[in-house]
Amino acid sequence: MIKDWNLFLFPYNQAAKEWKIKLRGIREEFQLMDEHSPIEFVTSRIKAIDSIKEKMVRRNIEPERLTEDMEDICGLRIMCPFLDDIYTVVDILRKRNDIDILEERDYVNNEKKSGYRSYHIVFKYPIELLDGQHNILVEIQIRTLAMNFWATLEHSLNYKHPDVFPENVHKRLQEASETAFELDEEMSEIRKELIKDAKRHQQEGKKNENCNLRK
Amino acid sequence: MIKDWNLFLFPYNQAAKEWKIKLRGIREEFQLMDEHSPIEFVTSRIKAIDSIKEKMVRRNIEPERLTEDMEDICGLRIMCPFLDDIYTVVDILRKRNDIDILEERDYVNNEKKSGYRSYHIVFKYPIELLDGQHNILVEIQIRTLAMNFWATLEHSLNYKHPDVFPENVHKRLQEASETAFELDEEMSEIRKELIKDAKRHQQEGKKNENCNLRK
Amino acid sequence: MIKDWNLFLFPYNQAAKEWKIKLRGIREEFQLMDEHSPIEFVTSRIKAIDSIKEKMVRRNIEPERLTEDMEDICGLRIMCPFLDDIYTVVDILRKRNDIDILEERDYVNNEKKSGYRSYHIVFKYPIELLDGQHNILVEIQIRTLAMNFWATLEHSLNYKHPDVFPENVHKRLQEASETAFELDEEMSEIRKELIKDAKRHQQEGKKNENCNLRK
Amino acid sequence: MIKDWNLFLFPYNQAAKEWKIKLRGIREEFQLMDEHSPIEFVTSRIKAIDSIKEKMVRRNIEPERLTEDMEDICGLRIMCPFLDDIYTVVDILRKRNDIDILEERDYVNNEKKSGYRSYHIVFKYPIELLDGQHNILVEIQIRTLAMNFWATLEHSLNYKHPDVFPENVHKRLQEASETAFELDEEMSEIRKELIKDAKRHQQEGKKNENCNLRK
Repeated sequence: MIKDWNLFLFPYNQAAKEWKIKLRGIREEFQLMDEHSPIEFVTSRIKAIDSIKEKMVRRNIEPERLTEDMEDICGLRIMCPFLDDIYTVVDILRKRNDIDILEERDYVNNEKKSGYRSYHIVFKYPIELLDGQHNILVEIQIRTLAMNFWATLEHSLNYKHPDVFPENVHKRLQEASETAFELDEEMSEIRKELIKDAKRHQQEGKKNENCNLRK
Repeated sequence: MIKDWNLFLFPYNQAAKEWKIKLRGIREEFQLMDEHSPIEFVTSRIKAIDSIKEKMVRRNIEPERLTEDMEDICGLRIMCPFLDDIYTVVDILRKRNDIDILEERDYVNNEKKSGYRSYHIVFKYPIELLDGQHNILVEIQIRTLAMNFWATLEHSLNYKHPDVFPENVHKRLQEASETAFELDEEMSEIRKELIKDAKRHQQEGKKNENCNLRK
Repeated sequence: MIKDWNLFLFPYNQAAKEWKIKLRGIREEFQLMDEHSPIEFVTSRIKAIDSIKEKMVRRNIEPERLTEDMEDICGLRIMCPFLDDIYTVVDILRKRNDIDILEERDYVNNEKKSGYRSYHIVFKYPIELLDGQHNILVEIQIRTLAMNFWATLEHSLNYKHPDVFPENVHKRLQEASETAFELDEEMSEIRKELIKDAKRHQQEGKKNENCNLRK
Repeated sequence: MIKDWNLFLFPYNQAAKEWKIKLRGIREEFQLMDEHSPIEFVTSRIKAIDSIKEKMVRRNIEPERLTEDMEDICGLRIMCPFLDDIYTVVDILRKRNDIDILEERDYVNNEKKSGYRSYHIVFKYPIELLDGQHNILVEIQIRTLAMNFWATLEHSLNYKHPDVFPENVHKRLQEASETAFELDEEMSEIRKELIKDAKRHQQEGKKNENCNLRK
C-alpha cells in the first residue's frame, strides 16, 4: 500500500501548480495581444485520498499500478466562454511540445448519461524529483461556463447524498443540462451574427471610403 | 486631475487583495465545518484607468470627488452555486463589523434592461496608508454561476463592439438571461426536493429504530 | 482540550494572510513613491500544533486561556535592510489604526542570551468569523537581514538537536551574532556617509548654479 | 527595435513563474522528507526595461540578438542557509532533465571586485507560446543568506547613487563582504561539529545498548 500519501501526492501537487501557471499563461498571451481569449479561468484540484482509495477498490487498481492507471489524480480545469472556444483550446494543447497526449474523450458532443459535458485530455508529464524524473498522468477538463454551472451544481447536489438520485431528479438534471447546452448554442449563434455584422459594416465602410475617394 | 494613477489606485489594489482574502476565508470556514458553502469562488478587478476616465465624463464626476462618487473602482465578485446562496452571503456580509454598508442594489429580482442580474453591495473601507487612514469605496457583486455565465458572455460580446447591440440581439440576450434564471430556479427546486427527501428518510429511519426498540 | 485544531487555527491562518497583504503593502507604497523601503520582505508562519502543545505544558497555559495567553500562534516577520529601518517600521506600525498594540519587546538592543536579536510587537486583531467577531493575538517580529541570517541558521542548527547546545557552541553562536550586529552597524555607517556626501554634492551643485546665475 | 516590450517580456515572465514553482518544489520535497533543506527561499525578478536598454548599449547588443545574448532578463535567486548548501543545490540543478546548462560562474570562491559573491547558472528553457516553442535564457543565482544580506544592502546603497562608490566606501564594502563570508564559514564549522557530536552520541548510545543487551 501507499505508506506516505503526502509524499506520493507531492509530484501531483507540483504538476498542478506548474500547469495552472502554464494554462493561465495562454489566457494572458491572448489578453496581451488584445484578442478574445478562449480561456476564461483555470482551476486545479488534487484528488482527495479517500476518493483515490474508493476508486482503487471500484476499478480494481493495484497500488503499484496507481501512477499508471489512475488518470485523474492531478486535475486541471479550463473554463471557456463559448462552445467553439473548447476546440480552440484543444487545438492549442495538441500543438504544445510539453504535452504528450495519451487519450482524448469528447463528452461535449457525447455527454454522459447524467448529463455531464466536458472535453477530457489525459497526458503524461515528467516531474523532476530529488531521485530523478518521474512520469505522472495529468487530466485537463475543458468546458464552457454553462457546462461548469451544471457540473458544479450537480456535484453539490451529490454532496452528502452519496446514493444515486431518484429517477425524477435524474431526469430533471438531464433536462437542465440540455437547456444549458442550448444556451451555449444560442450564445454562439448570437456571437457569429455579431461578427458577421461587424465584417459587413467594415466592408460597407470601405466601399463608402472608395466612393468618397472617387468623387 | 489625477497626477499619478498608480499612486491613486494603490489603496484600491490593496483593498482588493485584502477583501479577496477575507471573502475566500468565508468559503474556507464553511468547508472546514464540512458544510455547504454559499460561495463557489471569488474574483476581484480594479477598474481600468480608461474606464474610470470615460465614466467620469459620462457621469460628470469631478476629479476631487472621484474617491467619494465612483463606487466600483475596487470591485469584488462572489459566485454562488444556488439562488438562495446569494441572500445567505448578503446576510453574512451585513453582519460583519468590518463592512459599513452604504448601499445595496438587488438586480437579482429587478434585473437591468439588458438582462443583467446580480446583487450589489457598496461599502466604505478604511485603508492604512503611510500618511494615515483613508476611506475608499468597495463594491461587491454577488451572483449565481448561471448569472455569471450570462454576464461574462454578454461582456465578451460587447468587447470591441462598443456600440449598442442591434434590437434583435438585445432581445435574444434578454431571453437567454431569462432562461439562465429559470435554470437557477429549477436547480434550487431540485435541491429543496432532495433536502426534503433526505429529512423524510432520516425520520423514517428513526421511526424504524423506535419500532425495533419496542419489540 | 482543543477538539478540532484546524478549526481552532483557522482565524490565525486568516489573520496571517491578511497581515502578509497589509505589510507587503507598506513596501509597495514606498516603491511606488520611488523611495527607500524599510521593508525588504515579509513572511508568515502559523505555530505548529506540536509546538503549541509543548509550550502549553512548559508555560502552564490552560486550553481555555490559549487564545489570550499564547502570543505567537500567528507570527509575521518583517526583514529590513538597515538597522534604522527597524525603528522606521515600528513607528509606521504604531501609527496604524488597525493595530492595537499590547506589548513591545526590544531584543535588538537587548539581545537574548542565545544572541537572538529582533523587535517584537504583539497586538490584538479582530477576525470576522461566521459566528461573529473574535479577537486574536498577532506577533510581528522585525529584524535586519543580518539578524535574520543568524536566527535562521541558529534555528536550523537546533533542528533535530532538541537539547541545549554545548557551552563552546553556545559561545561561538553568541560571537557570530555579535559580528553580524557589527556588520549591521558598519553598513549603517557607510549609508549615512553616502547620504552626507550626496547632500554635500547637492549643495555644492546649488552654489555653483547660484554662481553661474550671478554672472 | 523591440516594438512591444510587454509582449517581448511575456515568455520571461512565464518562465519566472514556472521556475519559482519548480525551485520552491525542491524545498518542499526536502521538508516532506523531514530533511534539512539546502534552499531557504526563492525569489524571481524580470529585468526592468530601462536596465535592459542600458545594458544593450553598454554591451553593444543588437535588438535581434537580445534573446540569445542577454542572459539575465529572467532571473531566479535561491537563498541557502549554509555555504555547502550552495553546491548541493548546484548538483541538484545539474541533474535535472528540464535544465540545459549553458554556463556556470562561481563567484562564491572567486568573488567580484566589489565583494559580490554568488553562484550563477545560465540555462536554455523552452517556453510554449501560441506561435510555437521558443527558447529563452534563464539565470539562477545561488547564494547564502549572508551573501544575500551583503548584496541586498550594497544594491540599496547604489540606489539613486548611480556613480561609482568613493574609494574608501568601496574598501569598507569589500571588507564587510569578507566578514560576512567568514560568518558563513564559522556557521558551517559549528554545524559540522554538531553533526560530528550527534554521530558520536549515536554510536555511544548503540554501544551502551549492546552492553545492556549482553548483561
